[in-house]
Amino acid sequence: MPELRQDPASRDWIVIAAERAKRPDEFKTTKKPRPRAAYVAGCPFCEGNEALTPPENFAIRESGEPNTPGWKVRVVPNKFPALTPTGSITRRVESGFFRKTDGVGYHEIIIETPRHDLNMATMDVAQLEQVVFAYRQRFNELKGDTRVENIIIFRNHGKAAGTSIIHAHSQLIATSVVPNLLRERIEAATNYYDDIGRPLLGDILEKEMEVGTRVVDENHTFVAFHPFAPRQPFETWIVPRKLQASFGHIDDDECRHFARILQRALYRLYVGLGDPDFNFAIHTAPVHDENLSYYAWYLQILPRITTPAGFEIGSGMSINATFPEETAAFIREIDVPEAAPAT
Amino acid sequence: MPELRQDPASRDWIVIAAERAKRPDEFKTTKKPRPRAAYVAGCPFCEGNEALTPPENFAIRESGEPNTPGWKVRVVPNKFPALTPTGSITRRVESGFFRKTDGVGYHEIIIETPRHDLNMATMDVAQLEQVVFAYRQRFNELKGDTRVENIIIFRNHGKAAGTSIIHAHSQLIATSVVPNLLRERIEAATNYYDDIGRPLLGDILEKEMEVGTRVVDENHTFVAFHPFAPRQPFETWIVPRKLQASFGHIDDDECRHFARILQRALYRLYVGLGDPDFNFAIHTAPVHDENLSYYAWYLQILPRITTPAGFEIGSGMSINATFPEETAAFIREIDVPEAAPAT
Repeated sequence: MPELRQDPASRDWIVIAAERAKRPDEFKTTKKPRPRAAYVAGCPFCEGNEALTPPENFAIRESGEPNTPGWKVRVVPNKFPALTPTGSITRRVESGFFRKTDGVGYHEIIIETPRHDLNMATMDVAQLEQVVFAYRQRFNELKGDTRVENIIIFRNHGKAAGTSIIHAHSQLIATSVVPNLLRERIEAATNYYDDIGRPLLGDILEKEMEVGTRVVDENHTFVAFHPFAPRQPFETWIVPRKLQASFGHIDDDECRHFARILQRALYRLYVGLGDPDFNFAIHTAPVHDENLSYYAWYLQILPRITTPAGFEIGSGMSINATFPEETAAFIREIDVPEAAPAT
Repeated sequence: MPELRQDPASRDWIVIAAERAKRPDEFKTTKKPRPRAAYVAGCPFCEGNEALTPPENFAIRESGEPNTPGWKVRVVPNKFPALTPTGSITRRVESGFFRKTDGVGYHEIIIETPRHDLNMATMDVAQLEQVVFAYRQRFNELKGDTRVENIIIFRNHGKAAGTSIIHAHSQLIATSVVPNLLRERIEAATNYYDDIGRPLLGDILEKEMEVGTRVVDENHTFVAFHPFAPRQPFETWIVPRKLQASFGHIDDDECRHFARILQRALYRLYVGLGDPDFNFAIHTAPVHDENLSYYAWYLQILPRITTPAGFEIGSGMSINATFPEETAAFIREIDVPEAAPAT
């Protein structure tokens, strides 16, 4: 019998469609691994091709001047940005009714490695730590612009996830508006705190650990689990044990542990499902809510396994053809090398 | 310069990414039209293959017994339903925290034509009228089940829109919960009504007609326009002039006019963009809010031209690489035959 499950964080209902249920291993892709060169001449993100991008905003370097080789992680403005730093943030009313404003903000690319043949699941974990340090640096740098209201750090992997560029990269978009979705999440967390007296995400984490069947990994500072009401098969949340509203507030130790648990989660999806397309996004409080004591940042990984369609558009609900207890059991069985190989 | 625009109905902000802007004709697909047979032996939706589906719940027939040829529109339960009519709607609390319930509801397929070679853009409009009558019949029949809280009628066209079945069909999903998205929309409409004293969708419609640049079509009872803050290029709304909360309340005359304006909208997308993949959904009030005077149903067509990615997942905002004023001008230029051809 199908189930309706409510995501406690968003209050959205999810359908677990038992009549369509598949075994976890039926979600494997048919992708064939293709060996890639470490350097590709036309790739704008490869080391040596720095002139193909706009000048860098930030880099973690072993050597060299800005915009030359020698970097480990490099952050550049998106060449075709969704938002730009110039313009006015004043709201304007058009035709006495519609609201708009200039598209003020930042759109940056975090190039995760100088090498074309590595990805987040298989690069050296020390390299991924540098990527997380770069995330934090850019987050904290850009929140210093008083026009910035919200910052989303995200990653698109594969065509179904909306990218065509193979070279490993994440993105950051800083907006001069607070997204309505964030307002709704904060309202839900606020109501919960006012009623129950505890942070919502803290209680979700505590219950997931108590139940245990959906937990896939944990370390000193983070826990990874498949949520009770996932929108997609293998949806994964990585939640810090020490709740903090803002991703920008994580310390060095947390950065390193975050890199480790994130890589283990991605490695297991990579091996278990055959390099599936996925998105991830860091959900964090808007800049001016960064000290809310009852709100907490976390990372959501959303494999792009099924296609949201008309029902999802009309209802905001999702149909998921598998139980998270089963996908979590499948993922837990996958061994992760102590230090993931650098290929 | 990019713009941020707010959708007045959802209060979501949309990025119009001018730096990525494309001309409307650049969104054309590269699909090659393939002639199709009127009948395909293995197709469960073709006339003559009635035994390949579960027994029908409803049909509009010229002749014949149920589950035999002679029908014009046929409604059958989905063979792999997301929800089923049996079970309990009682909410259960798992582990003292997580909420769930049996997946009680209905999941039906509305087969729009007995013929394999027709689609909504090209079928005789009299046939499409019958489809709309079937929508209304099923909506009103299923809302009679007191367990049903909400009904979504939707259509998925093409692979990017989540369907692999070619034979023209729509779907209906009735749920025993009210989706959170609907609650949010109603709250926005209620706040607007309490502040301004007029229905929100009525004011949107009035302003769109006053501005005029985004209107693509109108007839006696409906207006079609590209909304001020579209999530995707060529997003189209069809809004009734006479606001009613529930789609189930439309009269025969409105059904006929709805079929006409819907077909003209789909025909123009079909010709102008080369048969793009799309979803549509009828947004209507939950069953028990069907008499709200300040809420109104409408239809949203969402072409699947770009892929929502990590930014959309993290923020609920969308990035659109074109202006609706330009897509609307492009669409208005496309001639529609007086009666669309039956091919």
